[in-house]
Amino acid sequence: MFAAPGAYDRAITVFSPDGRLFQVEYAMELVNRGATILAIRCSEGVVLGAEETVDPLEETEYSWKIFRIDDHVGAAIVGLSSDARILIDQARVMAQSNKLTYDEPIDVEVVTKRICDIKQLYTQHAGVRPFGVSMVFAGVDKTGGRVFGTHPSGTYRGYKARAEGAGRETVFNILKEEYKEDKSLKETTKLAVKCLAKALEARQLSPRIKVAVVSTETKKMEMLSDEEIDGILKELGVGK
Amino acid sequence: MFAAPGAYDRAITVFSPDGRLFQVEYAMELVNRGATILAIRCSEGVVLGAEETVDPLEETEYSWKIFRIDDHVGAAIVGLSSDARILIDQARVMAQSNKLTYDEPIDVEVVTKRICDIKQLYTQHAGVRPFGVSMVFAGVDKTGGRVFGTHPSGTYRGYKARAEGAGRETVFNILKEEYKEDKSLKETTKLAVKCLAKALEARQLSPRIKVAVVSTETKKMEMLSDEEIDGILKELGVGK
Amino acid sequence: MFAAPGAYDRAITVFSPDGRLFQVEYAMELVNRGATILAIRCSEGVVLGAEETVDPLEETEYSWKIFRIDDHVGAAIVGLSSDARILIDQARVMAQSNKLTYDEPIDVEVVTKRICDIKQLYTQHAGVRPFGVSMVFAGVDKTGGRVFGTHPSGTYRGYKARAEGAGRETVFNILKEEYKEDKSLKETTKLAVKCLAKALEARQLSPRIKVAVVSTETKKMEMLSDEEIDGILKELGVGK
Amino acid sequence: MFAAPGAYDRAITVFSPDGRLFQVEYAMELVNRGATILAIRCSEGVVLGAEETVDPLEETEYSWKIFRIDDHVGAAIVGLSSDARILIDQARVMAQSNKLTYDEPIDVEVVTKRICDIKQLYTQHAGVRPFGVSMVFAGVDKTGGRVFGTHPSGTYRGYKARAEGAGRETVFNILKEEYKEDKSLKETTKLAVKCLAKALEARQLSPRIKVAVVSTETKKMEMLSDEEIDGILKELGVGK
Amino acid sequence: MFAAPGAYDRAITVFSPDGRLFQVEYAMELVNRGATILAIRCSEGVVLGAEETVDPLEETEYSWKIFRIDDHVGAAIVGLSSDARILIDQARVMAQSNKLTYDEPIDVEVVTKRICDIKQLYTQHAGVRPFGVSMVFAGVDKTGGRVFGTHPSGTYRGYKARAEGAGRETVFNILKEEYKEDKSLKETTKLAVKCLAKALEARQLSPRIKVAVVSTETKKMEMLSDEEIDGILKELGVGK
Amino acid sequence: MFAAPGAYDRAITVFSPDGRLFQVEYAMELVNRGATILAIRCSEGVVLGAEETVDPLEETEYSWKIFRIDDHVGAAIVGLSSDARILIDQARVMAQSNKLTYDEPIDVEVVTKRICDIKQLYTQHAGVRPFGVSMVFAGVDKTGGRVFGTHPSGTYRGYKARAEGAGRETVFNILKEEYKEDKSLKETTKLAVKCLAKALEARQLSPRIKVAVVSTETKKMEMLSDEEIDGILKELGVGK
Amino acid sequence: MFAAPGAYDRAITVFSPDGRLFQVEYAMELVNRGATILAIRCSEGVVLGAEETVDPLEETEYSWKIFRIDDHVGAAIVGLSSDARILIDQARVMAQSNKLTYDEPIDVEVVTKRICDIKQLYTQHAGVRPFGVSMVFAGVDKTGGRVFGTHPSGTYRGYKARAEGAGRETVFNILKEEYKEDKSLKETTKLAVKCLAKALEARQLSPRIKVAVVSTETKKMEMLSDEEIDGILKELGVGK
Repeated sequence: MFAAPGAYDRAITVFSPDGRLFQVEYAMELVNRGATILAIRCSEGVVLGAEETVDPLEETEYSWKIFRIDDHVGAAIVGLSSDARILIDQARVMAQSNKLTYDEPIDVEVVTKRICDIKQLYTQHAGVRPFGVSMVFAGVDKTGGRVFGTHPSGTYRGYKARAEGAGRETVFNILKEEYKEDKSLKETTKLAVKCLAKALEARQLSPRIKVAVVSTETKKMEMLSDEEIDGILKELGVGK
Repeated sequence: MFAAPGAYDRAITVFSPDGRLFQVEYAMELVNRGATILAIRCSEGVVLGAEETVDPLEETEYSWKIFRIDDHVGAAIVGLSSDARILIDQARVMAQSNKLTYDEPIDVEVVTKRICDIKQLYTQHAGVRPFGVSMVFAGVDKTGGRVFGTHPSGTYRGYKARAEGAGRETVFNILKEEYKEDKSLKETTKLAVKCLAKALEARQLSPRIKVAVVSTETKKMEMLSDEEIDGILKELGVGK
Repeated sequence: MFAAPGAYDRAITVFSPDGRLFQVEYAMELVNRGATILAIRCSEGVVLGAEETVDPLEETEYSWKIFRIDDHVGAAIVGLSSDARILIDQARVMAQSNKLTYDEPIDVEVVTKRICDIKQLYTQHAGVRPFGVSMVFAGVDKTGGRVFGTHPSGTYRGYKARAEGAGRETVFNILKEEYKEDKSLKETTKLAVKCLAKALEARQLSPRIKVAVVSTETKKMEMLSDEEIDGILKELGVGK
Repeated sequence: MFAAPGAYDRAITVFSPDGRLFQVEYAMELVNRGATILAIRCSEGVVLGAEETVDPLEETEYSWKIFRIDDHVGAAIVGLSSDARILIDQARVMAQSNKLTYDEPIDVEVVTKRICDIKQLYTQHAGVRPFGVSMVFAGVDKTGGRVFGTHPSGTYRGYKARAEGAGRETVFNILKEEYKEDKSLKETTKLAVKCLAKALEARQLSPRIKVAVVSTETKKMEMLSDEEIDGILKELGVGK
Repeated sequence: MFAAPGAYDRAITVFSPDGRLFQVEYAMELVNRGATILAIRCSEGVVLGAEETVDPLEETEYSWKIFRIDDHVGAAIVGLSSDARILIDQARVMAQSNKLTYDEPIDVEVVTKRICDIKQLYTQHAGVRPFGVSMVFAGVDKTGGRVFGTHPSGTYRGYKARAEGAGRETVFNILKEEYKEDKSLKETTKLAVKCLAKALEARQLSPRIKVAVVSTETKKMEMLSDEEIDGILKELGVGK
Repeated sequence: MFAAPGAYDRAITVFSPDGRLFQVEYAMELVNRGATILAIRCSEGVVLGAEETVDPLEETEYSWKIFRIDDHVGAAIVGLSSDARILIDQARVMAQSNKLTYDEPIDVEVVTKRICDIKQLYTQHAGVRPFGVSMVFAGVDKTGGRVFGTHPSGTYRGYKARAEGAGRETVFNILKEEYKEDKSLKETTKLAVKCLAKALEARQLSPRIKVAVVSTETKKMEMLSDEEIDGILKELGVGK
Repeated sequence: MFAAPGAYDRAITVFSPDGRLFQVEYAMELVNRGATILAIRCSEGVVLGAEETVDPLEETEYSWKIFRIDDHVGAAIVGLSSDARILIDQARVMAQSNKLTYDEPIDVEVVTKRICDIKQLYTQHAGVRPFGVSMVFAGVDKTGGRVFGTHPSGTYRGYKARAEGAGRETVFNILKEEYKEDKSLKETTKLAVKCLAKALEARQLSPRIKVAVVSTETKKMEMLSDEEIDGILKELGVGK
């Protein structure tokens, strides 16, 4: 009775007869095929993690999946990294501007919401396409540790733990079993590494993992060194 | 004699031969499939209610269906939550601006009408799509308790009680039987919870319900705690 | 020899080979299917009337079909009520602005013409659709009682009596027989109620009727109460 | 060898292979089907005339076909009356502005040319459609009586006598026989009425005719009363 | 191998596979079907000529084919006269502006080039169509008599003699035989009239001819009276 | 496997699946069919040459293929001459502006690059078409004699000698044999004339050739007279 | 189940059902067919290299593949050279502006990122096409030698060594074997020349190679002379 998807999926300004926005769904498809990212909140802080595939001739010192927004808040991204960079830049400007205007670090939800407002704009007006990226914001603000998952549509929600990308189901299943809010930051970091290693294992890939943490005490985001991560992997007995 | 819907449903600037705006109807289809929301007015105030489905790893403290616009007025939304957020933000700015300009809280109808003027704009000009969201505004102003239902087209009307979303018919049938304008706010809250629980039951879902009330006395919107709602459910003998 | 309507009816900027604007005609189709409205002028003033269908849980105190533009002039609308609201708002602003600038109430024709200029704009420029609404303006100004009927194309004409919407033919037939310019305002009100009741009856609907009058004496628009209308219906022996 | 009209007639910015602008031709088709208008110049002044069809419940005091632009110049219109109104308004503003700037009444050709410049604009730029109206401007300026016929394309020419609309051929045939430049204004008025009455007769319609004159002496446009026109019709022995 | 014209001829912004701009060619087609115009330069000045067809009820005192740009320069046009008028107006403004700025009459080539720059703009940007008109500019400036032919594409070239429109080949053949640069202005005028009369004759039309001359002595454009042209026709023994 | 050219060749903003821009290629096709132009650099200066076809009634004193940009630099063009004129004008303004700002003549590469930047703009943004013209810039600046060939895409390169248009291969073959950087300007001029004469001969056309030279000594562009060119042709024993 | 590529590949604002941006992929196709470029970092600096094909009549002193951005940073480009030039110009302005604002040379990553931000813009907004070019930025800044590869999508990453274009796989295979970070700049230059020569050899082309180096000591980009490159080729025993 209704026309095929093809008839309603060329523009972000067109609903399908059953009320779907196909261009947003196609952007989500891109995200779902990307390398897994995750964020986990515990009582002592938050952990951000990401798989990263690296070309043999690539410099290993850069992280293209986890970004610092401000001292106390970071983001992991999955999807088009050029699209993500535009939003990361916006988020950084918002964080600096908030500090200058109110003399206090921006709330994790505030920066998430503003980025998602930009994303929404790109789903309702002609002449653009949605941002092909999902981002997980995680940080510590005056309300404690916070994790927010976002969607190409501009929707966001607050999570205890959130994973996106190709390995999201593997991660989700591990987290449902093992996540405990009152674990230490160290234990939570270990859980994050395990999730990512298992997600890679499930797709028969060898792990290359990036992890960052923000503790409620320091409120400073810190990237773990490759050695620290290798140590955890060895402890867990997975990968390599 | 007339062409098929498909020929007139790609743009908000095109009427079909029988004078319909298909893009608005498709947006309404999206709304009709969303989680049920409702608002009920009684002589002692207004009640806003919504079903909320929650991911096991989601934070439970947030409400993504019921929003405070100002102390004395709230809104429940159904449809695209990112679209709704844009309108909620606009409504909050209008409420604050009204307070600053006229030194009194904004009338519930005024904020409803202005939001619907924005919605109308998105149904008549090219290069956008309609907002994929219905909102019910409810609050207490100098004219007493007020409930307004709105539509993606920008139409709104005043109601004693209004439900939108997948369970709207179940709710409507209960309300036709049991709604009484002179019930107490407490009784009306119980009725709201019952409506939502039954709407979920009818679709064989277990209830997770959010409720907010504004009493004519305090003119302050207050969210009920999950415990209070569980108490009511137990009293009613439904759900869990 | 000429292409089918379908080839010329997707944009307001395209004439068909025989010089028609299909989008305007489709908007008129929407108007022709709407609930009946009317306005009648007599020597003592003008009467505005409209059928209104009301949801059982709707507030009955509002009128969504008849609007006050200024003290001395009102309008009845049929078609998309969200479209109409935008034009009603514009008309109110024009009336206030006229009062401020010239220190006298706006002429009924002036406000009609300016609204129709806006409507015309939406029939000649790309990127919009016509306003899906017909409005009848009625009021009392320095030239006496005035009634103007308007069309989605932006055309308007002056009438002694005018009806639009689904029951327009029923009303027209009654008016041709019974309209007299020198009837009293009371008699004319009765005629308006009769027209609407018969129009509803013809479509086998029970009447819910709204009526407003502006007398040449007071130059103030007044809505009749539901009781007053019920009284007239009883007198006429129609409906309920 | 060439594609069908249908391939080149959706936009005003596209020439057909044989160099035609179909949208302008379709607008002309609309004009050719409209009620007849005419203007005649004689040594004593100019006469404007138009058929007008009137709804039984319409006010008869208005003229929707003949408009005063300024004291000394008027215009008769055929086609979309809402389109015409926009141009009439522009013409009035030009006339007033000319009076303020140069302290003399605007030349009939000047106002004609400026209106036609607007019309031309709507035949060469995307996103609009041509004005669906032909206008005949007639008046008395410092060069004497003047009549200009205009076309939806923006073309205009000076005429001794000009007719447009459904009855243009009937009128043209009478004028070719009976037009004399040195007839009195009274005789010319009679000729105008005869033309319109015959044009209506030819289409088996009963006459309702509006006529306005500008004499070279007074340079004031005056509408004839319905009684005056009925008198002439009686004299001519046509109609009613 | 290549697609049909139809695939590349709807927009001025699209080259065909063989590098043609069809919309410009279609505009030229319109020009080629129009009434013949010409301009001839001789040592004593320049002559502009045009066929003009006149409606029996048209005023004969106007020229719609030959226009004065400034005292010393005129233009003959063929194609859409409303398009031409826009360019003529621009040319007049340029001429006046040049006089004010440099205190000397504008060069014929300068005004030609600027008009052609406008024409070019309408062949390279979307949302417009080319000007459907060819113009021949002729006049006397400090470099002597000058004739420039222009094309809808915005191309122009300098000519001794130039003809455009339906009779251009007839005229061209006469000119190739009879044109001599050192003929007197009077002889050249006669040649111009002969060319136009023969061009009309070849299409079995009776001549109505307009001619204007600018002599190098006076540098003033003067229109010949109809009597003067009739005299020349009689002398030539052609037409009437 | 890939769609036909026709699917990707209507807009400058669309790459074909194999990464081609068809609209640029079609513009190049237009250039390749145009009259041959060339420029040759030698140690004593540069030579610009072009074929020019002339209508029998055309003025012969103008050059429509070779243009002076500034005293020390010229350009030869092939393709749409109206498009070329726009760029030539831009180049002249750049040259004058450079002189005013830096008090020295503009470098040949600088003016080439800026014109090519404009060309590039017209190959990447919607709503325009590429400039349908190739230009060869040649001149003498502080780095000596310089020749730059440009392409509708906005690409340019530095050449010792460059030919474009229908005869480019004939010219190329002669140049490969006979070009020597250390020839005198006179010998190089002769070579240029020979190339053009042979290119015309190859297409069985009789030569009409325009040539301009800029010597490193004078740094002034000078057009050769028709007599000088005829002299060279006689010397070469080609043509006429 | 999904539509063919053809249905989603005409605009940069449309995702395909599997989340791909075909226009970006087609631009990459253009890049992949271009002449090979590379950049290699060693402890003593960076080397930029490119194949260049040269027309026999072209000036050999210019480089159209390797550009100086600032003293300490260069870029090699592959794809549309007119597109590249626009970005190179932007990069140069950024470098100068950075020097003026902060009084220090711009970081290699900063200039890379800003150029990629421009590229991203051209992949998300309608009315443009992506830049059809990949660039490798290489230079020495306060963090040492840096090489960044960029993509038409606006993505960039940091590399030890990077090759793009038709020979990228040949180069990649050599680099995987022979690249050592601690080689001298001289040895690395030799490696670069070898890679390019082998890439040309693999496609049976004779080498013409351009190379530039920036040493960490001087921080000055220097182009190798053709003689130096010929010397290296002779040493390597490849090519000519």
